[in-house]
Amino acid sequence: MQVFIATIAGQEAILREDESFHCTRVLRKKAGDKIVVINGRGFMSQAILTHLHDKKCVAVLDGSPLAGHHRHYFIHLCIAPTKHADRTEWMLEKCIELGLDAISFFTSGNSERVHLKHERMVKIAESAVKQSLQSTVPSISELVKFGDLLRLDGYDEKYIAHCNGGDKVDLKSLPFTDKRTIILIGPEGDFTPEEIPAAKAAGFKSLSLGENRLRTETAGLMVCAAAALR
Amino acid sequence: MQVFIATIAGQEAILREDESFHCTRVLRKKAGDKIVVINGRGFMSQAILTHLHDKKCVAVLDGSPLAGHHRHYFIHLCIAPTKHADRTEWMLEKCIELGLDAISFFTSGNSERVHLKHERMVKIAESAVKQSLQSTVPSISELVKFGDLLRLDGYDEKYIAHCNGGDKVDLKSLPFTDKRTIILIGPEGDFTPEEIPAAKAAGFKSLSLGENRLRTETAGLMVCAAAALR
Repeated sequence: MQVFIATIAGQEAILREDESFHCTRVLRKKAGDKIVVINGRGFMSQAILTHLHDKKCVAVLDGSPLAGHHRHYFIHLCIAPTKHADRTEWMLEKCIELGLDAISFFTSGNSERVHLKHERMVKIAESAVKQSLQSTVPSISELVKFGDLLRLDGYDEKYIAHCNGGDKVDLKSLPFTDKRTIILIGPEGDFTPEEIPAAKAAGFKSLSLGENRLRTETAGLMVCAAAALR
Repeated sequence: MQVFIATIAGQEAILREDESFHCTRVLRKKAGDKIVVINGRGFMSQAILTHLHDKKCVAVLDGSPLAGHHRHYFIHLCIAPTKHADRTEWMLEKCIELGLDAISFFTSGNSERVHLKHERMVKIAESAVKQSLQSTVPSISELVKFGDLLRLDGYDEKYIAHCNGGDKVDLKSLPFTDKRTIILIGPEGDFTPEEIPAAKAAGFKSLSLGENRLRTETAGLMVCAAAALR
Protein backbone atom coordinates (compact mmCIF):
# COMPACT_ATOMS: atom_id res chain seq x y z
CA MET A 1 0.00 0.00 0.00
CA GLN A 2 1.81 3.13 -1.24
CA VAL A 3 0.92 6.38 0.50
CA PHE A 4 1.24 9.88 -0.97
CA ILE A 5 0.68 13.33 0.52
CA ALA A 6 -1.91 15.31 -1.45
CA THR A 7 -4.27 18.25 -1.37
CA ILE A 8 -7.85 17.02 -1.32
CA ALA A 9 -10.45 18.99 -3.27
CA GLY A 10 -13.85 17.30 -3.38
CA GLN A 11 -13.31 13.85 -4.85
CA GLU A 12 -9.93 14.76 -6.30
CA ALA A 13 -6.49 14.36 -4.75
CA ILE A 14 -3.67 16.47 -6.17
CA LEU A 15 -0.32 14.99 -5.20
CA ARG A 16 2.29 17.44 -3.92
CA GLU A 17 5.04 18.26 -6.43
CA ASP A 18 7.74 16.11 -4.77
CA GLU A 19 5.25 13.29 -4.31
CA SER A 20 4.23 13.53 -7.97
CA PHE A 21 7.87 13.21 -9.00
CA HIS A 22 8.31 10.17 -6.76
CA CYS A 23 5.08 8.64 -8.08
CA THR A 24 5.98 9.01 -11.75
CA ARG A 25 9.78 8.91 -11.94
CA VAL A 26 10.73 6.60 -9.09
CA LEU A 27 7.76 4.27 -8.72
CA ARG A 28 6.70 4.63 -12.39
CA LYS A 29 3.01 4.44 -11.57
CA LYS A 30 0.46 4.42 -14.39
CA ALA A 31 -3.06 5.79 -14.80
CA GLY A 32 -5.48 3.34 -13.20
CA ASP A 33 -3.06 2.31 -10.42
CA LYS A 34 -4.48 2.27 -6.90
CA ILE A 35 -2.74 4.36 -4.26
CA VAL A 36 -3.52 5.76 -0.82
CA VAL A 37 -3.58 9.51 -0.27
CA ILE A 38 -3.31 11.44 2.99
CA ASN A 39 -3.50 15.18 3.56
CA GLY A 40 -1.16 15.03 6.59
CA ARG A 41 -3.92 16.34 8.85
CA GLY A 42 -5.89 13.17 9.52
CA PHE A 43 -7.54 12.40 6.17
CA MET A 44 -6.75 9.09 4.44
CA SER A 45 -8.40 7.47 1.41
CA GLN A 46 -7.77 5.00 -1.35
CA ALA A 47 -7.57 6.65 -4.76
CA ILE A 48 -7.04 5.81 -8.41
CA LEU A 49 -4.44 7.69 -10.42
CA THR A 50 -6.03 9.45 -13.39
CA HIS A 51 -3.48 12.01 -14.54
CA LEU A 52 0.28 11.58 -14.27
CA HIS A 53 2.83 14.35 -14.60
CA ASP A 54 6.13 14.56 -12.77
CA LYS A 55 5.08 17.86 -11.19
CA LYS A 56 1.37 17.18 -10.66
CA CYS A 57 -0.35 13.83 -10.38
CA VAL A 58 -4.10 13.66 -9.91
CA ALA A 59 -6.08 10.80 -8.40
CA VAL A 60 -9.80 10.28 -7.83
CA LEU A 61 -10.90 9.20 -4.38
CA ASP A 62 -12.17 5.66 -4.36
CA GLY A 63 -14.93 5.12 -1.82
CA SER A 64 -15.20 6.45 1.70
CA PRO A 65 -12.21 7.75 3.69
CA LEU A 66 -10.18 5.10 5.51
CA ALA A 67 -10.45 5.10 9.26
CA GLY A 68 -6.98 6.25 10.24
CA HIS A 69 -5.65 5.08 13.58
CA HIS A 70 -7.00 7.51 16.17
CA ARG A 71 -4.73 7.97 19.16
CA HIS A 72 -6.34 8.29 22.58
CA TYR A 73 -3.58 10.57 23.84
CA PHE A 74 -1.62 13.64 22.80
CA ILE A 75 2.12 13.59 23.35
CA HIS A 76 4.43 16.56 22.82
CA LEU A 77 8.09 15.63 23.09
CA CYS A 78 10.61 18.44 23.65
CA ILE A 79 14.16 17.23 23.13
CA ALA A 80 17.62 18.70 22.70
CA PRO A 81 19.21 17.59 19.41
CA THR A 82 22.09 15.17 19.96
CA LYS A 83 25.68 16.06 19.11
CA HIS A 84 25.52 13.67 16.16
CA ALA A 85 22.57 14.60 13.94
CA ASP A 86 21.97 11.02 12.76
CA ARG A 87 20.93 9.97 16.28
CA THR A 88 18.26 12.68 16.35
CA GLU A 89 17.05 11.78 12.87
CA TRP A 90 16.78 8.08 13.70
CA MET A 91 14.91 8.93 16.89
CA LEU A 92 12.47 11.16 15.05
CA GLU A 93 11.65 8.37 12.59
CA LYS A 94 11.13 5.84 15.38
CA CYS A 95 9.11 8.15 17.63
CA ILE A 96 6.74 8.85 14.77
CA GLU A 97 6.36 5.17 13.98
CA LEU A 98 5.52 4.56 17.64
CA GLY A 99 3.19 7.58 17.82
CA LEU A 100 3.94 11.26 18.40
CA ASP A 101 1.80 14.39 18.02
CA ALA A 102 4.29 17.21 18.33
CA ILE A 103 8.03 17.54 18.75
CA SER A 104 10.02 20.61 19.72
CA PHE A 105 13.78 20.71 19.40
CA PHE A 106 15.47 23.07 21.81
CA THR A 107 18.87 24.31 22.93
CA SER A 108 19.76 24.53 26.58
CA GLY A 109 22.83 25.37 28.67
CA ASN A 110 24.63 22.10 27.94
CA SER A 111 23.62 21.71 24.28
CA GLU A 112 26.46 20.74 21.99
CA ARG A 113 24.35 21.08 18.85
CA VAL A 114 22.74 24.46 18.26
CA HIS A 115 21.65 24.03 14.65
CA LEU A 116 18.85 21.96 13.19
CA LYS A 117 17.96 21.22 9.58
CA HIS A 118 14.26 21.79 10.01
CA GLU A 119 13.34 20.97 6.42
CA ARG A 120 15.17 17.65 6.66
CA MET A 121 13.34 16.82 9.90
CA VAL A 122 9.99 17.47 8.22
CA LYS A 123 10.97 15.16 5.32
CA ILE A 124 11.92 12.39 7.75
CA ALA A 125 8.67 12.88 9.64
CA GLU A 126 6.53 12.70 6.50
CA SER A 127 8.31 9.59 5.34
CA ALA A 128 7.78 7.87 8.72
CA VAL A 129 4.09 8.81 8.74
CA LYS A 130 3.59 7.24 5.30
CA GLN A 131 5.69 4.19 6.14
CA SER A 132 3.67 3.47 9.28
CA LEU A 133 0.31 4.07 7.57
CA GLN A 134 -0.68 7.09 9.62
CA SER A 135 -2.52 10.11 8.25
CA THR A 136 -1.31 12.99 10.42
CA VAL A 137 2.14 14.55 10.21
CA PRO A 138 3.23 15.71 13.68
CA SER A 139 4.04 19.33 14.26
CA ILE A 140 7.83 19.88 14.23
CA SER A 141 9.16 23.11 15.65
CA GLU A 142 12.15 25.08 14.50
CA LEU A 143 14.94 25.06 17.11
CA VAL A 144 13.69 27.00 20.17
CA LYS A 145 15.28 27.97 23.47
CA PHE A 146 14.70 26.02 26.67
CA GLY A 147 13.01 29.04 28.25
CA ASP A 148 10.42 29.18 25.45
CA LEU A 149 9.18 25.70 26.39
CA LEU A 150 8.35 26.80 29.91
CA ARG A 151 5.81 29.27 28.56
CA LEU A 152 3.83 26.67 26.57
CA ASP A 153 0.40 25.98 27.99
CA GLY A 154 -2.66 23.82 27.37
CA TYR A 155 -1.24 20.61 28.86
CA ASP A 156 -2.74 18.29 31.49
CA GLU A 157 0.58 16.67 32.37
CA LYS A 158 4.00 18.37 32.29
CA TYR A 159 7.28 16.55 33.01
CA ILE A 160 11.01 17.10 32.84
CA ALA A 161 13.21 13.97 32.62
CA HIS A 162 16.61 14.58 34.20
CA CYS A 163 19.38 12.63 35.94
CA ASN A 164 19.56 14.69 39.15
CA GLY A 165 18.22 13.28 42.39
CA GLY A 166 15.03 14.12 44.24
CA ASP A 167 11.47 12.84 44.10
CA LYS A 168 10.43 11.71 40.65
CA VAL A 169 7.34 10.38 38.96
CA ASP A 170 7.97 7.00 37.27
CA LEU A 171 7.32 6.93 33.52
CA LYS A 172 5.41 3.67 34.05
CA SER A 173 2.80 5.49 36.13
CA LEU A 174 1.94 8.30 33.69
CA PRO A 175 -1.70 8.22 32.61
CA PHE A 176 -1.34 9.41 28.95
CA THR A 177 -4.88 8.24 28.04
CA ASP A 178 -7.14 11.22 27.26
CA LYS A 179 -4.41 13.60 28.44
CA ARG A 180 -2.29 16.20 26.71
CA THR A 181 1.23 15.39 27.96
CA ILE A 182 4.43 17.38 27.41
CA ILE A 183 7.82 15.90 28.32
CA LEU A 184 11.21 17.64 28.26
CA ILE A 185 14.40 15.63 27.61
CA GLY A 186 17.78 17.33 27.92
CA PRO A 187 20.99 17.12 25.89
CA GLU A 188 23.89 14.68 26.44
CA GLY A 189 25.14 16.70 29.43
CA ASP A 190 21.62 16.85 30.96
CA PHE A 191 19.87 20.04 32.04
CA THR A 192 21.89 22.62 33.99
CA PRO A 193 21.29 23.04 37.75
CA GLU A 194 19.39 26.26 36.98
CA GLU A 195 17.10 24.76 34.33
CA ILE A 196 15.54 22.07 36.52
CA PRO A 197 14.13 24.43 39.20
CA ALA A 198 13.01 26.83 36.44
CA ALA A 199 10.98 24.02 34.88
CA LYS A 200 9.58 23.02 38.27
CA ALA A 201 8.52 26.60 38.90
CA ALA A 202 6.67 26.45 35.57
CA GLY A 203 4.72 23.38 36.72
CA PHE A 204 6.87 20.58 35.30
CA LYS A 205 7.33 17.52 37.53
CA SER A 206 10.56 15.47 37.63
CA LEU A 207 10.30 12.24 35.65
CA SER A 208 12.29 9.00 36.01
CA LEU A 209 12.75 6.81 32.94
CA GLY A 210 14.02 3.81 34.93
CA GLU A 211 17.32 2.53 36.24
CA ASN A 212 19.37 2.29 33.06
CA ARG A 213 21.30 5.36 31.96
CA LEU A 214 19.66 6.20 28.62
CA ARG A 215 21.12 8.25 25.81
CA THR A 216 19.11 11.35 24.88
CA GLU A 217 17.57 9.73 21.80
CA THR A 218 16.74 6.53 23.67
CA ALA A 219 14.95 8.58 26.32
CA GLY A 220 12.82 10.13 23.55
CA LEU A 221 11.96 6.67 22.19
CA MET A 222 11.10 5.34 25.65
CA VAL A 223 8.62 8.15 26.26
CA CYS A 224 6.82 7.57 22.94
CA ALA A 225 6.77 3.81 23.55
CA ALA A 226 5.30 4.33 27.03
CA ALA A 227 2.46 6.41 25.59
CA ALA A 228 1.80 3.92 22.80
CA LEU A 229 1.77 1.00 25.24
CA ARG A 230 -0.57 2.54 27.83
CA MET B 1 31.44 7.07 35.48
CA GLN B 2 33.59 5.15 32.99
CA VAL B 3 32.94 1.42 32.75
CA PHE B 4 35.41 -1.23 31.58
CA ILE B 5 35.04 -4.95 30.97
CA ALA B 6 37.50 -6.97 33.05
CA THR B 7 38.32 -10.38 34.45
CA ILE B 8 37.85 -10.37 38.19
CA ALA B 9 40.31 -12.38 40.30
CA GLY B 10 39.88 -11.86 44.03
CA GLN B 11 40.21 -8.13 44.67
CA GLU B 12 41.89 -7.51 41.32
CA ALA B 13 40.32 -6.56 38.01
CA ILE B 14 42.34 -7.19 34.86
CA LEU B 15 40.99 -5.11 32.00
CA ARG B 16 40.55 -6.91 28.68
CA GLU B 17 43.20 -6.09 26.08
CA ASP B 18 40.96 -3.79 23.96
CA GLU B 19 39.65 -2.13 27.10
CA SER B 20 43.20 -1.62 28.36
CA PHE B 21 44.11 0.09 25.10
CA HIS B 22 41.03 2.33 25.33
CA CYS B 23 41.81 3.12 28.96
CA THR B 24 45.44 4.14 28.37
CA ARG B 25 45.61 5.42 24.80
CA VAL B 26 42.19 7.00 24.27
CA LEU B 27 41.10 8.07 27.74
CA ARG B 28 44.69 8.49 29.01
CA LYS B 29 43.83 7.30 32.50
CA LYS B 30 46.50 7.37 35.21
CA ALA B 31 47.28 5.17 38.21
CA GLY B 32 44.99 6.19 41.06
CA ASP B 33 42.05 7.06 38.77
CA LYS B 34 38.67 5.66 39.79
CA ILE B 35 36.81 3.51 37.27
CA VAL B 36 33.96 1.01 37.27
CA VAL B 37 34.60 -2.58 36.20
CA ILE B 38 32.08 -5.18 35.05
CA ASN B 39 32.69 -8.79 34.10
CA GLY B 40 29.78 -8.82 31.62
CA ARG B 41 28.00 -11.50 33.65
CA GLY B 42 26.38 -9.41 36.36
CA PHE B 43 29.33 -8.25 38.48
CA MET B 44 29.97 -4.51 38.87
CA SER B 45 32.33 -2.69 41.20
CA GLN B 46 34.21 0.55 41.60
CA ALA B 47 37.96 0.10 41.27
CA ILE B 48 41.19 2.10 41.36
CA LEU B 49 43.69 1.76 38.55
CA THR B 50 47.05 0.56 39.85
CA HIS B 51 48.96 -0.65 36.81
CA LEU B 52 48.60 0.80 33.32
CA HIS B 53 49.77 -0.84 30.15
CA ASP B 54 48.11 -0.56 26.75
CA LYS B 55 47.63 -4.33 26.64
CA LYS B 56 46.86 -5.00 30.30
CA CYS B 57 45.56 -2.56 32.88
CA VAL B 58 45.03 -3.69 36.45
CA ALA B 59 42.71 -2.13 39.01
CA VAL B 60 41.98 -2.97 42.64
CA LEU B 61 38.35 -3.32 43.66
CA ASP B 62 37.24 -0.49 45.89
CA GLY B 63 34.64 -1.59 48.44
CA SER B 64 31.70 -3.89 47.95
CA PRO B 65 30.21 -4.74 44.53
CA LEU B 66 27.69 -2.25 43.17
CA ALA B 67 24.12 -3.39 43.08
CA GLY B 68 23.56 -3.66 39.34
CA HIS B 69 20.04 -3.19 38.06
CA HIS B 70 18.31 -6.54 38.40
CA ARG B 71 15.61 -7.14 35.82
CA HIS B 72 12.45 -8.90 36.94
CA TYR B 73 11.95 -10.49 33.52
CA PHE B 74 13.91 -12.37 30.86
CA ILE B 75 13.40 -11.36 27.25
CA HIS B 76 14.83 -13.19 24.27
CA LEU B 77 14.32 -11.31 21.02
CA CYS B 78 14.66 -13.25 17.76
CA ILE B 79 14.80 -10.93 14.79
CA ALA B 80 15.68 -11.09 11.11
CA PRO B 81 18.49 -8.64 10.23
CA THR B 82 17.24 -5.72 8.13
CA LYS B 83 18.33 -5.19 4.53
CA HIS B 84 20.41 -2.21 5.67
CA ALA B 85 22.78 -3.31 8.44
CA ASP B 86 22.81 0.11 10.14
CA ARG B 87 19.15 -0.29 11.10
CA THR B 88 19.90 -3.58 12.85
CA GLU B 89 22.93 -2.13 14.60
CA TRP B 90 21.00 0.89 15.85
CA MET B 91 18.21 -1.34 17.07
CA LEU B 92 20.63 -3.59 18.93
CA GLU B 93 22.11 -0.61 20.77
CA LYS B 94 18.67 0.73 21.70
CA CYS B 95 17.23 -2.64 22.74
CA ILE B 96 20.15 -3.18 25.09
CA GLU B 97 19.78 0.29 26.60
CA LEU B 98 16.10 -0.48 27.22
CA GLY B 99 16.85 -3.97 28.53
CA LEU B 100 17.42 -7.26 26.70
CA ASP B 101 18.71 -10.64 27.87
CA ALA B 102 19.32 -12.54 24.65
CA ILE B 103 19.03 -11.81 20.96
CA SER B 104 19.06 -14.26 18.07
CA PHE B 105 19.43 -13.12 14.51
CA PHE B 106 17.85 -15.44 11.97
CA THR B 107 17.18 -15.86 8.28
CA SER B 108 13.78 -16.86 6.99
CA GLY B 109 12.08 -17.27 3.63
CA ASN B 110 11.76 -13.54 2.94
CA SER B 111 15.12 -12.46 4.37
CA GLU B 112 17.02 -10.02 2.17
CA ARG B 113 20.11 -10.08 4.37
CA VAL B 114 21.69 -13.46 5.01
CA HIS B 115 25.00 -12.36 6.52
CA LEU B 116 25.74 -10.92 9.92
CA LYS B 117 28.95 -9.46 11.34
CA HIS B 118 28.69 -11.23 14.66
CA GLU B 119 31.85 -9.73 16.13
CA ARG B 120 30.62 -6.23 15.31
CA MET B 121 27.28 -6.99 16.98
CA VAL B 122 29.07 -8.09 20.15
CA LYS B 123 31.10 -4.86 20.17
CA ILE B 124 27.94 -2.77 19.82
CA ALA B 125 26.29 -4.75 22.59
CA GLU B 126 29.21 -4.34 24.98
CA SER B 127 29.37 -0.64 24.31
CA ALA B 128 25.62 -0.22 24.96
CA VAL B 129 25.87 -2.20 28.21
CA LYS B 130 28.65 0.06 29.48
CA GLN B 131 26.92 3.25 28.28
CA SER B 132 23.70 2.36 30.09
CA LEU B 133 25.50 1.28 33.29
CA GLN B 134 24.48 -2.35 33.16
CA SER B 135 26.68 -5.26 34.17
CA THR B 136 25.50 -8.13 31.97
CA VAL B 137 26.20 -8.43 28.26
CA PRO B 138 23.27 -10.15 26.54
CA SER B 139 23.84 -13.36 24.66
CA ILE B 140 24.06 -12.69 20.91
CA SER B 141 23.70 -15.61 18.56
CA GLU B 142 25.42 -16.17 15.27
CA LEU B 143 22.95 -16.06 12.38
CA VAL B 144 20.61 -19.07 12.69
CA LYS B 145 17.78 -20.43 10.57
CA PHE B 146 14.12 -19.77 11.38
CA GLY B 147 13.53 -23.49 11.97
CA ASP B 148 16.23 -23.58 14.67
CA LEU B 149 14.26 -21.07 16.76
CA LEU B 150 11.24 -23.35 16.90
CA ARG B 151 13.26 -25.97 18.72
CA LEU B 152 14.35 -23.65 21.55
CA ASP B 153 12.75 -24.47 24.88
CA GLY B 154 12.65 -23.26 28.47
CA TYR B 155 10.27 -20.33 27.91
CA ASP B 156 7.05 -19.46 29.74
CA GLU B 157 5.75 -17.24 26.96
CA LYS B 158 6.36 -17.70 23.22
CA TYR B 159 5.14 -15.27 20.55
CA ILE B 160 5.49 -14.58 16.85
CA ALA B 161 4.76 -11.00 15.69
CA HIS B 162 3.44 -10.99 12.12
CA CYS B 163 1.22 -8.88 9.86
CA ASN B 164 -1.21 -11.62 8.79
CA GLY B 165 -4.73 -11.70 10.14
CA GLY B 166 -6.25 -13.98 12.76
CA ASP B 167 -6.53 -13.84 16.54
CA LYS B 168 -3.60 -12.14 18.19
CA VAL B 169 -2.42 -11.36 21.69
CA ASP B 170 -1.85 -7.63 22.23
CA LEU B 171 1.71 -6.68 23.23
CA LYS B 172 0.19 -4.46 25.93
CA SER B 173 -1.26 -7.49 27.68
CA LEU B 174 1.92 -9.60 27.94
CA PRO B 175 2.91 -10.33 31.54
CA PHE B 176 6.76 -10.25 31.21
CA THR B 177 7.24 -10.00 35.01
CA ASP B 178 8.88 -13.16 36.38
CA LYS B 179 8.50 -14.83 32.98
CA ARG B 180 10.96 -16.04 30.37
CA THR B 181 9.54 -14.59 27.15
CA ILE B 182 10.70 -15.26 23.58
CA ILE B 183 9.41 -13.15 20.69
CA LEU B 184 10.03 -13.68 16.96
CA ILE B 185 10.04 -10.71 14.57
CA GLY B 186 10.29 -11.30 10.83
CA PRO B 187 12.19 -9.56 8.03
CA GLU B 188 10.92 -6.60 5.93
CA GLY B 189 8.71 -8.92 3.86
CA ASP B 190 7.27 -10.58 7.01
CA PHE B 191 7.22 -14.32 7.64
CA THR B 192 6.16 -16.62 4.81
CA PRO B 193 2.71 -18.27 4.87
CA GLU B 194 4.41 -21.54 5.83
CA GLU B 195 6.46 -20.11 8.71
CA ILE B 196 3.54 -18.78 10.75
CA PRO B 197 1.70 -22.13 11.15
CA ALA B 198 5.04 -23.84 11.80
CA ALA B 199 5.67 -21.45 14.70
CA LYS B 200 2.13 -21.96 15.98
CA ALA B 201 2.61 -25.72 15.90
CA ALA B 202 5.73 -25.19 18.03
CA GLY B 203 3.68 -23.31 20.65
CA PHE B 204 4.19 -19.70 19.54
CA LYS B 205 1.13 -17.43 19.77
CA SER B 206 0.44 -14.61 17.28
CA LEU B 207 1.33 -11.20 18.66
CA SER B 208 0.00 -7.77 17.66
CA LEU B 209 2.25 -4.75 18.16
CA GLY B 210 -0.55 -2.21 17.62
CA GLU B 211 -2.18 -0.41 14.72
CA ASN B 212 0.80 1.36 13.14
CA ARG B 213 2.80 -0.54 10.53
CA LEU B 214 6.22 -0.82 12.18
CA ARG B 215 9.53 -1.42 10.48
CA THR B 216 11.36 -4.57 11.59
CA GLU B 217 13.78 -2.69 13.82
CA THR B 218 11.02 -0.58 15.36
CA ALA B 219 9.12 -3.76 16.22
CA GLY B 220 12.22 -5.00 18.08
CA LEU B 221 12.44 -1.75 20.03
CA MET B 222 8.75 -1.80 20.87
CA VAL B 223 9.01 -5.29 22.36
CA CYS B 224 11.97 -4.35 24.60
CA ALA B 225 10.24 -1.12 25.65
CA ALA B 226 7.09 -3.05 26.55
CA ALA B 227 9.08 -5.40 28.80
CA ALA B 228 10.97 -2.52 30.44
CA LEU B 229 7.76 -0.59 31.05
CA ARG B 230 5.76 -3.46 32.56
